[in-house]
Amino acid sequence: MWVSGLLSRARTPARLLRDVLPASGRRGPAISSYSASAEPSRVRALVYGHHGDPPKVVELKNLELAAVGGSDVHVKMLAAPINPSDINMIQGNYGLLPKLPAVGGNEGVGQVVAVGSDVTSLKAGDWVIPANAGLGTWQTEAVFSEEELMRVPSDIPLQCAATLSVNPCTAYRMLMDFEQLQPGSIGDSVIQNASNSGVGQAVIQIAAALGLRSINVVRDRPDIQKLTDRLKNLGAEHVITEEELRRPEMKNIFKDMPQPRLALNCVGGKSSTELLRQLAPGGTMVTYGGMAKQPVIASVSLLIFKDLKLRGFWMSQWKKDHSPDQFKEMILTLCDLIRQGQLTGPACTEVPLQDYQRALEASMKPFVSSKQILTM
Amino acid sequence: MWVSGLLSRARTPARLLRDVLPASGRRGPAISSYSASAEPSRVRALVYGHHGDPPKVVELKNLELAAVGGSDVHVKMLAAPINPSDINMIQGNYGLLPKLPAVGGNEGVGQVVAVGSDVTSLKAGDWVIPANAGLGTWQTEAVFSEEELMRVPSDIPLQCAATLSVNPCTAYRMLMDFEQLQPGSIGDSVIQNASNSGVGQAVIQIAAALGLRSINVVRDRPDIQKLTDRLKNLGAEHVITEEELRRPEMKNIFKDMPQPRLALNCVGGKSSTELLRQLAPGGTMVTYGGMAKQPVIASVSLLIFKDLKLRGFWMSQWKKDHSPDQFKEMILTLCDLIRQGQLTGPACTEVPLQDYQRALEASMKPFVSSKQILTM
Repeated sequence: MWVSGLLSRARTPARLLRDVLPASGRRGPAISSYSASAEPSRVRALVYGHHGDPPKVVELKNLELAAVGGSDVHVKMLAAPINPSDINMIQGNYGLLPKLPAVGGNEGVGQVVAVGSDVTSLKAGDWVIPANAGLGTWQTEAVFSEEELMRVPSDIPLQCAATLSVNPCTAYRMLMDFEQLQPGSIGDSVIQNASNSGVGQAVIQIAAALGLRSINVVRDRPDIQKLTDRLKNLGAEHVITEEELRRPEMKNIFKDMPQPRLALNCVGGKSSTELLRQLAPGGTMVTYGGMAKQPVIASVSLLIFKDLKLRGFWMSQWKKDHSPDQFKEMILTLCDLIRQGQLTGPACTEVPLQDYQRALEASMKPFVSSKQILTM
Repeated sequence: MWVSGLLSRARTPARLLRDVLPASGRRGPAISSYSASAEPSRVRALVYGHHGDPPKVVELKNLELAAVGGSDVHVKMLAAPINPSDINMIQGNYGLLPKLPAVGGNEGVGQVVAVGSDVTSLKAGDWVIPANAGLGTWQTEAVFSEEELMRVPSDIPLQCAATLSVNPCTAYRMLMDFEQLQPGSIGDSVIQNASNSGVGQAVIQIAAALGLRSINVVRDRPDIQKLTDRLKNLGAEHVITEEELRRPEMKNIFKDMPQPRLALNCVGGKSSTELLRQLAPGGTMVTYGGMAKQPVIASVSLLIFKDLKLRGFWMSQWKKDHSPDQFKEMILTLCDLIRQGQLTGPACTEVPLQDYQRALEASMKPFVSSKQILTM
C-alpha cells in the first residue's frame, strides 16, 4: 500500500516507494494541531504506474494517509479537473513528467483539515490550490508540505477555484507579458485559435475585462451558431472558423479594428500559419499548445519583412521563474474578476472520483465543450 | 533615354519617367564645385522594366547623367556585387520593391567626382556606399543626394568596401542584437546554416573576432573538405553538413562546448527545424533568408518547454529604425576588423559591367562560393 501525501510531497515517487512500502513503522513527529485519529485514514487516489492511454493505465487505489509533520498540511480535496496537460502527462508527452507511480492531476481545490505546528500561512478550513504542477490532485485527501500549497479565497464558486491555477493564469500571463497592449475602442486586438478551450474562454473574458478586442478562431461544427453566441456572450468581438480565417474576406474585419499585435496559438500546423498572416508588423505569436499535433509553420518572409516574433509559454516554467508572491498577486487579481462576474469557470461536468474512466474518456473526445471535474 | 541619378534619387521611378523623359530642357541650379562639362555624360546602367528572371529582364541601357543640384553628389561607381537580395528584388520576391523601371543593385562602392554647393559631409575623391537599400548601384556613374550616401574609409580593399553594407552588417547585427553572448573559451557558441554564404562567412569571422565559438552547417558537396578547411581558416570551430546536423552524434559536439544560445537561419524548412533542436533553453533563432524556399518549421514542444524564440532580421529595416550615426559607427567597427585582418571580403569574381548576363547567371547557380562583382 502506498502512502498518499508522502507520494506527493517527496516529488520522487520512485524513491518514495522504497521509503514507503514498509510504512507501518514510520510516523512523523508529534503535531499539536493535528486532530485526526491515530488510525490512518483511507485515501482513494487515481494512480498510474506507467505511461500510456489514460483510461487504461490509470487505476483507483487505496492509499494510506501519511503522518503530518511539523511543516505539513492535511488537505481534503474537494474538486479537481481533468486538463489536457494531465492527459499529456499520463501519455508521457509533457515537459514535466513525475517519476512513476504517480497520482494524476495537477490542479484542483482542497480544504485544510489540519496543519503541523510549524505551519503559519494556512489554518484548518482554508481553501488551497497547488502552488506548482505535479502535485497529484486526483485523490480524496493527502498530506502536503506547506510550500506546495497556496491559499485562495473561499468566496468564489468551487468550480472556479478548482480550475483557477492553470487556464486563467495561462491566459492572463499571455495577455500581459509579451506585448504591451493598449485597451479601448481604438486600442489593440488579440487573435487566438482553439478559442473554445479552457484557456481560450479565459482569454476571451480577461481580454474583454482588460478592454482588449478579440478575434476568436474555432473549428467548424454543426452547432457553430450556438458556440458563436456563447463565446460572444463571454466577450468575444469576432468568432470565426478556421476556414473563414483562410479566406480573403478576413481582411474586412480590419476595416474597423486594428490588426492584432498578439496571437495565441494552441493548435500549430496550418492554423498557426494563418494566425501569423493576420498579425500586425512587429507582432508576437505565443504558442502554448499543439492540438493538431503538427509543428508551427512560419513564412520566412513574414519573419524577415514583418519582423514577426514567435514565442512559447508554459505556466509551470513561469511559476519556477517567479516568486510565490507574484503567483499569489495574479490569483487575487483573477479572483477579483470572478467576483465582479467578468471571469466565469468553464462549463463543467462533475463526475464522482470512482467514475474516473468515463471522465477520462469524455475529456479526450474532440469538440469537448465541457470540462470534466472529479469530485471527491 | 532615362536620366541616371534622378532615377535613383527620386526613389519613385514611375514619377521619374514622367519628369525625365523630356529631360533635355531640365537643368539643375548652378553648382560652384561641379566641374563636369556642360554636355551630359553617357551613363551605362543595368535596368529592368518588369519583374522576372534576371538574365532575361535586365538590360544594359545608356542613360543621361542628371544635373547636380546643390545637395547632390556626382559619383563614379567603382564596383558593385550581385547579392541574393538583388536577385530576389528583380524577381519581385522581396520586402522592398522599387517602382519600375529601376536600376538594379543595392550595394557597391563609388568615388565622388563632384559635389553640389550645399554638400558638407562629402568631397571629391571620397569613397561612398549606399546609406539604404534601393539605390541602384549597377551603373557606371550617377547623381545621388547627399543623404543617400555614406563615406567609408578608402584604405580598405575595394572589394571589401563594395560588399560592406549588406552581408557583414547583417552578420554583425545578428550577433549583437538578439542574445547577450559571452565571449571566451567557456563562453557562448553560435550555430548557423548556409555558412558558406556571404553573411555566413562574415558571421564566422566576426564571431571569431568577438571571441564566440561557431558551429557552421553547409550542404554536402564533392569538395567538402576543401570548403571545411577554408571556413576553419576563417575562424569556424566546427563545420558540419546538413546530414551530420541530423545525426545523434551531433550531441558529441556539446561535450566540450555549450549548446548555442543563438542560431542564424538562411535556409528554412528542415534545416531550420534542426537548428532549433540544437539551441540551448531560452535561445533565439534569427531567420534572415529562405534559400530552401520552404517555411520555418518549429516544434511546438521546443517553443513551449524550452522557451525558444524565433525572430527575423532585415538590414533595410534596421537602417530605417536607426540613425545614420549608428550605421556609421557599425561601418567603422567593421573597417577596423578589416584593417586588423579579422574580416576579409568574400571570394569574388570580377566581371565587367557589359558581361552582366554571365554574372547574373553565375550568381544564381547552386553551391556558389564566389561572389560576382560588377566593375565599371
